[in-house]
Amino acid sequence: MGKQDSAKAIKKLDKLTPRSQNQSKWYQEVVLKTDLADYSPVRGCMVIKPYGYAIWELIQKELDQRIVNMGAKNAYFPIFIPYSFLEKEADHVEGFAPEVATVTHAGGKELEEKLAVRPTSETIIYSMFANWIESYRDLPYKINQWGNVVRWEKRTTPFLRTSEFLWQEGHTLHATKEEANIQVLDALKVYRKFLEDNLSLCVVAGKKTEAEKFAGAEETYTVESLMKDGKALQVGTTHLLSHSFVESFGVDFLDENGDRKTPWATSWGMSTRMIGGLIMAHGDDKGLVLPPRVAPVQIVIIPISKSGDEFKKERETLQRFIVSAVKPALAEVRYEVDWSDNSPGWKFANWEMKGVPIRLEIGAREIKSGELSFAIRFNGEKDSIKIDSLGEWVTQKLAEIGDDMLAAHKEFTAENTREVSSYAEFKEVIKRDRGYVKVMFDQKDSAPESEIKAETKATTRCMPFEEDDIDKGLERATGKCFYSGDEGGAVTLFARAY
Amino acid sequence: MGKQDSAKAIKKLDKLTPRSQNQSKWYQEVVLKTDLADYSPVRGCMVIKPYGYAIWELIQKELDQRIVNMGAKNAYFPIFIPYSFLEKEADHVEGFAPEVATVTHAGGKELEEKLAVRPTSETIIYSMFANWIESYRDLPYKINQWGNVVRWEKRTTPFLRTSEFLWQEGHTLHATKEEANIQVLDALKVYRKFLEDNLSLCVVAGKKTEAEKFAGAEETYTVESLMKDGKALQVGTTHLLSHSFVESFGVDFLDENGDRKTPWATSWGMSTRMIGGLIMAHGDDKGLVLPPRVAPVQIVIIPISKSGDEFKKERETLQRFIVSAVKPALAEVRYEVDWSDNSPGWKFANWEMKGVPIRLEIGAREIKSGELSFAIRFNGEKDSIKIDSLGEWVTQKLAEIGDDMLAAHKEFTAENTREVSSYAEFKEVIKRDRGYVKVMFDQKDSAPESEIKAETKATTRCMPFEEDDIDKGLERATGKCFYSGDEGGAVTLFARAY
Repeated sequence: MGKQDSAKAIKKLDKLTPRSQNQSKWYQEVVLKTDLADYSPVRGCMVIKPYGYAIWELIQKELDQRIVNMGAKNAYFPIFIPYSFLEKEADHVEGFAPEVATVTHAGGKELEEKLAVRPTSETIIYSMFANWIESYRDLPYKINQWGNVVRWEKRTTPFLRTSEFLWQEGHTLHATKEEANIQVLDALKVYRKFLEDNLSLCVVAGKKTEAEKFAGAEETYTVESLMKDGKALQVGTTHLLSHSFVESFGVDFLDENGDRKTPWATSWGMSTRMIGGLIMAHGDDKGLVLPPRVAPVQIVIIPISKSGDEFKKERETLQRFIVSAVKPALAEVRYEVDWSDNSPGWKFANWEMKGVPIRLEIGAREIKSGELSFAIRFNGEKDSIKIDSLGEWVTQKLAEIGDDMLAAHKEFTAENTREVSSYAEFKEVIKRDRGYVKVMFDQKDSAPESEIKAETKATTRCMPFEEDDIDKGLERATGKCFYSGDEGGAVTLFARAY
Repeated sequence: MGKQDSAKAIKKLDKLTPRSQNQSKWYQEVVLKTDLADYSPVRGCMVIKPYGYAIWELIQKELDQRIVNMGAKNAYFPIFIPYSFLEKEADHVEGFAPEVATVTHAGGKELEEKLAVRPTSETIIYSMFANWIESYRDLPYKINQWGNVVRWEKRTTPFLRTSEFLWQEGHTLHATKEEANIQVLDALKVYRKFLEDNLSLCVVAGKKTEAEKFAGAEETYTVESLMKDGKALQVGTTHLLSHSFVESFGVDFLDENGDRKTPWATSWGMSTRMIGGLIMAHGDDKGLVLPPRVAPVQIVIIPISKSGDEFKKERETLQRFIVSAVKPALAEVRYEVDWSDNSPGWKFANWEMKGVPIRLEIGAREIKSGELSFAIRFNGEKDSIKIDSLGEWVTQKLAEIGDDMLAAHKEFTAENTREVSSYAEFKEVIKRDRGYVKVMFDQKDSAPESEIKAETKATTRCMPFEEDDIDKGLERATGKCFYSGDEGGAVTLFARAY
């Protein structure tokens, strides 16, 4: 990023580049033309504009409630982390050092110890836990933080991968490993349900291989979602940290018998990347398609009126009608009336591009007949609805659109999940179809994953759960590894990924 | 800050150091013992713990609504600012350079241009405005950002002055200076009303002197609040930026006639410092006193029961009574029942320290009589209330407590505002009584303010509005300057300040 004039330049274009023609150009245009975000003068950092930020606020509000319901309480820790803290966990610093932004000077002086701008907050948070946790009565201890983090990425794309992003990170301590394990999977379930209910995103939940897990974790679980271009997006992860961090920072507690014990830790996070997922999973050649629950504008009303002399009179009639008959029916809904000077045709295209779920058209004909014309962004459905039943219809229709979008994305994901048993077949499928490729794979050694990635750009996404049910544990089927041919392969999904 | 063990050590203390005995020790103990915040391992940065963060969330929710009602939309800009951006405004960089934290390395390399961690976001935001604003149709343009900022302070106190703090910053552009002026005062009114309604804080609104205004502003307005120790706290400021920043970053627009014009800018902010204001303005020897609208727990219910064998049976009866008779009446209220093993006396003291507005006591006696004993934290009132009218009473009482706390703080502020006409008298009053000292002062030259500060530690807080009414403009009375004796003095408030 850093192309300062791109927003202005691209705004002048009349139409979007078709998705099929140039995926990344389409994505960039959607982000800029719908005012979701803009490039900033700081390499890799984006500006989230009001339309994009409104989506983030709707995501936050709902996700926060679900996190609080898990028993976590929100708190705030410093953005700076003493560099020596990162170094206390060998795996952690190895994983994050290449991406850290470092403050060396502050207050006009060189600092005695340089500070990392947090890439994630385990180290600073567990250093505080060491002061706060005394006995088993303090456990479980569950904290959540909403904030910004910085990871200096080489290649960036708005929302999908940026040097600074916004996220939540949950951190918990438990008396036993069993409890920590339950927490890690509970967080994963909450993430999946949230993504399905609110973003209409079909996700596959599973466990990361050793090579792909979080730097410092014993186990990492993930929810992955397949984008329309056949590439996977890691939308959220939950980590069983067990005793790493906790031991490095000396967190301990006295159990019921007065014995000193080490608690078991978990952490889990989701970020503004979710918005990138929305764009890539649901968008089409006309632009964004927003699921109703996170759409800043759920319904747009386009007044249809003549443009000549009659305009003023007609406009007044329309306004009166909207205030008296339409507004009361939309009390629970986020809606907007587009009174701008643009033509109805321009407005239709503009609000379609912005992904507003329902368009209502109101003109002289609608007032006379008492039936409003509507159009559904997601499936192009067009029909009319009696003004008397508008309120009820809207509530039901918005819920239905959310469900239908999820169903469509589930179907897409199923259609684009292919099983193969040989590496030759794997290469062909990845190249021709992309999507998830399901194989038996032996992940004990990380070398094969590097080799496969180098040759095909595909990486392991996860080892999925039995029947897609988190409570059932990972898929138990085993067999010959598709790559090495040895026994010891477990069900694993590969894909090219963001 | 940086005293890692202080939270643990101070928790062991039974009682708070009385306010009258040692103000700053009292403040530190209140912050740590009530779990508002803790010291972090990073110099000057605090950890906001769940109880403190819950207050911040309640502040945010209500203030955000009022900011949105002014027509501002939330957005998010990068935390990093290219250092050259700060330098584009000479006054700005001079004011902020001594406090800036600087990133020199990122992604394993030294950066070509060092990055400032934002101390405030004017420069990065106006650089974006230059791309976004094209014509008069885009104006007024109003943005608000919730986020963290960093100012490397020499001496820090949790909430009142920290190296990192959380805040909102509003930024607006207008076609005319008149409109910008109205916006600056509207924001000031919103701040005052919010602080009165939600934090029960009496504030004096006024204009800053040339010496005290924001680095880069043409005018700075402020809301100041008098703490119980007689020192003033600058709670919020609004700035008429006029053409600074806007000109440096080339923001312009085409007016109705197609002429290129420069818009007029404002910015305004309030921060987690508000929580420090709450503690210092309302707290007493027993601890925090929270205004009901920002109290995370508005009502605490203390079950009164025997501790011996009868305990279990009694507890069940109490639970049943609370669920059936009390809970329904408290549906709209944030309440907690303290079922912990501690004695009622310990619980009373603990929840008083945490500043919970209303305590309800429920035991066998209350169940029998149908009247619940209550105690009001703010004024110590104790009485009982019939269970049948509990719901109605609670709503009314919570509102009443908020009003009464504001009235008390207004009275305190009036009592501690003293007029003097000579510097000799000024020195005496500042030393003996602290509080606001109202004088006629000539602020054209900044030297006298430095001299007065050096000798008395008092600084100008503001030039207040006529009859405390922002719409009436600054107080018009003029007279001889209390310091220089020359004509040209205007009504000015001095105080020692945080």
